[in-house]
Amino acid sequence: MDWIENLKKKIDKNILFTRDEELTNYASDYTEDLVHIPQVVAKPTTVEQISEILKFCTLNKIPVTPRGAGTGLSGGSLPVDGGISLSMENFNKILNIDEVNFQATVESGVINEAFQQAVKAKGLFYPPDPASKGSCFLGGNIAHSSGGPKALKYGTTKDYVLNLQVVLPTGEILWTGADTLKNSTGYNLTQLLIGSEGTLAVVTKIVFRLLPLPLNNLLMLAKFQSIKDACNAVPQLFTSGTSPSALELMERNAIDYVHKYASASHTATTLSMTSSPSSAEVKAYLLIEVDGNAMDELFSQCEQINEVLEANNVIEVQFADTAEQKEKLWHVRRSIGEMVKIHSIYKEEDAVVKRAHLPELMEGTKAIGLEYGFESVCYGHAGDGNLHINILRGELTEEQWNGPHLEEAIRKIFRLCKKLGGTISGEHGIGLVQKKYMNEVLDPIHFTLMKGIKKTFDPAGILNPNKIWE
Amino acid sequence: MDWIENLKKKIDKNILFTRDEELTNYASDYTEDLVHIPQVVAKPTTVEQISEILKFCTLNKIPVTPRGAGTGLSGGSLPVDGGISLSMENFNKILNIDEVNFQATVESGVINEAFQQAVKAKGLFYPPDPASKGSCFLGGNIAHSSGGPKALKYGTTKDYVLNLQVVLPTGEILWTGADTLKNSTGYNLTQLLIGSEGTLAVVTKIVFRLLPLPLNNLLMLAKFQSIKDACNAVPQLFTSGTSPSALELMERNAIDYVHKYASASHTATTLSMTSSPSSAEVKAYLLIEVDGNAMDELFSQCEQINEVLEANNVIEVQFADTAEQKEKLWHVRRSIGEMVKIHSIYKEEDAVVKRAHLPELMEGTKAIGLEYGFESVCYGHAGDGNLHINILRGELTEEQWNGPHLEEAIRKIFRLCKKLGGTISGEHGIGLVQKKYMNEVLDPIHFTLMKGIKKTFDPAGILNPNKIWE
Repeated sequence: MDWIENLKKKIDKNILFTRDEELTNYASDYTEDLVHIPQVVAKPTTVEQISEILKFCTLNKIPVTPRGAGTGLSGGSLPVDGGISLSMENFNKILNIDEVNFQATVESGVINEAFQQAVKAKGLFYPPDPASKGSCFLGGNIAHSSGGPKALKYGTTKDYVLNLQVVLPTGEILWTGADTLKNSTGYNLTQLLIGSEGTLAVVTKIVFRLLPLPLNNLLMLAKFQSIKDACNAVPQLFTSGTSPSALELMERNAIDYVHKYASASHTATTLSMTSSPSSAEVKAYLLIEVDGNAMDELFSQCEQINEVLEANNVIEVQFADTAEQKEKLWHVRRSIGEMVKIHSIYKEEDAVVKRAHLPELMEGTKAIGLEYGFESVCYGHAGDGNLHINILRGELTEEQWNGPHLEEAIRKIFRLCKKLGGTISGEHGIGLVQKKYMNEVLDPIHFTLMKGIKKTFDPAGILNPNKIWE
Repeated sequence: MDWIENLKKKIDKNILFTRDEELTNYASDYTEDLVHIPQVVAKPTTVEQISEILKFCTLNKIPVTPRGAGTGLSGGSLPVDGGISLSMENFNKILNIDEVNFQATVESGVINEAFQQAVKAKGLFYPPDPASKGSCFLGGNIAHSSGGPKALKYGTTKDYVLNLQVVLPTGEILWTGADTLKNSTGYNLTQLLIGSEGTLAVVTKIVFRLLPLPLNNLLMLAKFQSIKDACNAVPQLFTSGTSPSALELMERNAIDYVHKYASASHTATTLSMTSSPSSAEVKAYLLIEVDGNAMDELFSQCEQINEVLEANNVIEVQFADTAEQKEKLWHVRRSIGEMVKIHSIYKEEDAVVKRAHLPELMEGTKAIGLEYGFESVCYGHAGDGNLHINILRGELTEEQWNGPHLEEAIRKIFRLCKKLGGTISGEHGIGLVQKKYMNEVLDPIHFTLMKGIKKTFDPAGILNPNKIWE
C-alpha cells in the first residue's frame, strides 16, 4: 500500500505495526466473535504523533479507529473499514492527583481500576466501575460514558469529567473546557464528546473531579423464587426511603453459568453463598450495597431494605461478612459476561427503561425469547433500569443468528424499551452492532443533527467511520 | 413592517404583542441597565405555535430571542437584533411528578422554586437553586446550566436533566434523549443543548431526575477578620474530611449593602447575626450548610468544620437556630445582587477557578480594582471556586464604564482566571456582555466547532443571534 509507505516517512516508524499477528491482535474486541483486521496498528506515545497521524489521514482519506483496551461490547473499536487501529495503550500515565481540589489528570489509556486504586490511596474516590474495570481504559469509558454498579448513586463517567484534551481529525489539539467544577462558557464540548464513541475526536488527557472516599459499606445478597418478585422490590427500595449505592439484578441462569465455568479459586466463598438454601428454588438474585461513613446509618438502611425484601417474598438475605466475601460476590457479578461467553457466543443488548418498568422489560424479553427460540441471560443495574440481555447463540443456525430472524427479535425488545420510555443503550454504546436498531428510537432529524456535528468535527469522515448510524 | 403583518396571518394573533409598553417590558433583563427593544413579543401557548413561529422566522430571516423570566445576568435574553422576543411564560405547568421513578416532567416556563416546592411536598428533592429561584424559569436554568449554593454537593442543572423536548429553528420538534437515568445512544444532544443559551433550539419540556429529600440540615455563619483567612479555610474544609452541602463566601461590603438597603422586614434576625460582634472587625463571612438524614452525623461534621474555622482565625461562628433564621440568612445571601444594584449599576463577572486558587483570584481582583479605580463586591460559591464579582459603576464616567478602560480591567481578571486553571463563567453564561472576552479562554478552533454546531441546528442563524461569540 502506497499510503502506508508514505505514512512511515512522516511518522516515527517504531510506533507503526503491520505484521499479520500484530494486526490480528487489534482486529477484535469483546463483541461476539467479530473480526475486522486493520491495515496498520499505530501505538503513539505523544499527542503530537496523534495529531500528525490524523492530519495525514484526513488529507489521504484513511480511516482511523481509536482503540482503548478492546473491552467494548458494541464493536466500537473494530476497524470495519480497515485503515489504522489507533491504540492508546501507551497513554498510560496518571499525571496528577490534586488532593486539595479533589481532581486528577490522567492520560486516556490508564486502566480504570488502576486509577481507582491510586486515588483511593489518597482518600479519594472515583466511582464509575464497569465490569471490565480491571482492564478497560478510562478513554474507553469516555467513549461510551460507562457506568457500572455504582452509577446508581454516583452517576456515570460523564458526571466526573471536567475537561478533555483531544485531537481533532484535522490535527488540532485542544482542551474542551476548564479544570473547574462549574463551567458555563460556550457550548459544552466536553459533554458532547463523552459518549461520542471516538467518532469526533481522539481523547488524550482527562481531568476528573473526585469525591471523598466513603469510609464504609455493607453488601447483601437477596434470593427470590421469582424474577418478578426481585424486580418489584427494586422501585420499592427507593420509595421506602433507602438509597442503595448499588442494586444489581442477576437471573438464576447467570449464576448457574458462573458456577459451571468459574475456576474454584475466585468463587469458593461465593459459591456457598449463592448455592444455599436449596438452589433449585432460586430464580433471581439482588445484590444490594449501601455505603457511607456512619455505620449505624448503614445498618439502619439495611434493616429497612430487609423489610422491603421480605414484603416481596425474599427467600433468604445474606450479608457479606468480610471484605474478601464482598470482593468475591462482586467478582461473581462482574464475571457473568465472561462465563456466559465460555458457554456460548452471545449478542449483548444493553436495554434501559425507567426502573419501575423492569418487570415488563424482563417478561417481554423472555416471551420474545420463547417466540424466537433463544435462551437469554439477564442481569444488570436494576436500580438504573439498565438490563444487560445476553442472547445466547446456542443451537441457532448461522442464518438465524446473523439474519433477519434474530434481528426481528432484537427489534421487538427495543420497541418494548421505547414503549416503556427507554432506549437501546444505557452504557455500552451503539458502535457497530447496534447501529441498525437506532431507527427504533431516533427520528431522521436526530441523524441529521448528529451527522452535522460529525461533519463539523471530522470533515473528511475518517474517524471511526461506519459507527453509531448506518 | 411587512413581516409582522405576514406573521399575524400565520399565527394566532392573540399571542403576538406589538404595543410600545409591551415591547418595553421585554427589552431588558437583570443585566446592568441594558435595553434592546424587540419588534414583536410572542407568548406562545403550544409547542406547535413555537414550531410555526420558528419556521416562519427561518424562512424570512427574522431574529428570534427566547426569553425565560428575564433574570439573566449576561444579557442572554436581550433581543439585540430586534425581531421577536419569544417569551416562555405560558409554558408554566408541572406535567408530572413520578414518585416511583424519582422523575418529573415540566414545561420550561415553570419557576424554579415552585418546582422545588412541588417535589418537596412529595418527599423529593430538586437541588439547583440559583439566587433568583423565586422568579427564574427552569428553561432559563437550562440555558446557562445554572447552579446555586447547593451545586457544591449536588451539581448544577445539567446533572438533573434526562431529556428535553425542543423545537429547532427550522420548526422540527424532537426529544433529545430518553426518560432514563443512563443513556449511551448516540451523541448527547441533551447535554449539548444545556448551556447553549437558547442559540440552538427552544426548550419546551424538561424531564428531570430527582433525589430523595435530605431530612435535616444545619447552617452556620462564620466571621473572619480577613478575606484571606476565609478563603484559606475553604479547601481545608474538604481536605479535613467534611462535605458541606453549601459553602458561600461574602465579602464585608456585600453585607453592608444588604444592611443599608434591605427593608427591615426580611432581615431583622439576620441583621443581628451579621452585625455582632463589633462589625468593624469583620472583613468576610462564610455561610456553611451541611445536610443529610442523621443529625448526629451532621453535628459531628459541624464540630470538624468548627475546628478548621478556628485554625483559620475565625472571629465568631453562629448557628441558625430555627428554620426561620436559616431562611433569613439565605435570603440575605440571595439578595446581595439586588441590594448592590440599588446602590449602583454594576457589571457582573462570574469568574471560576479551582477552589484552592480563590485567595489569588480575590487578591488579584482587588488589586485590579485599585489600579483601574473601581469598587467591587465579591461573593459566591466558594466551594466551587465560583466568585461573583460585582464591579460597581460608582463614579466612573460613561467613557470609562463602557469603554476600553474597564474592558481592559475585566480582561485582566479573566486572564488571571485562565492562569489559575479557570474560566470566565461558572453559571451565568456568556450571552451578550461576556462574548468579547471569550477569546481570553478559547482558541479559534473552539469557535470553529461552536459555529459549525450552530449552523447544523440553525442554518439561517435566526435563533438568539449575536450571543456567546463575536
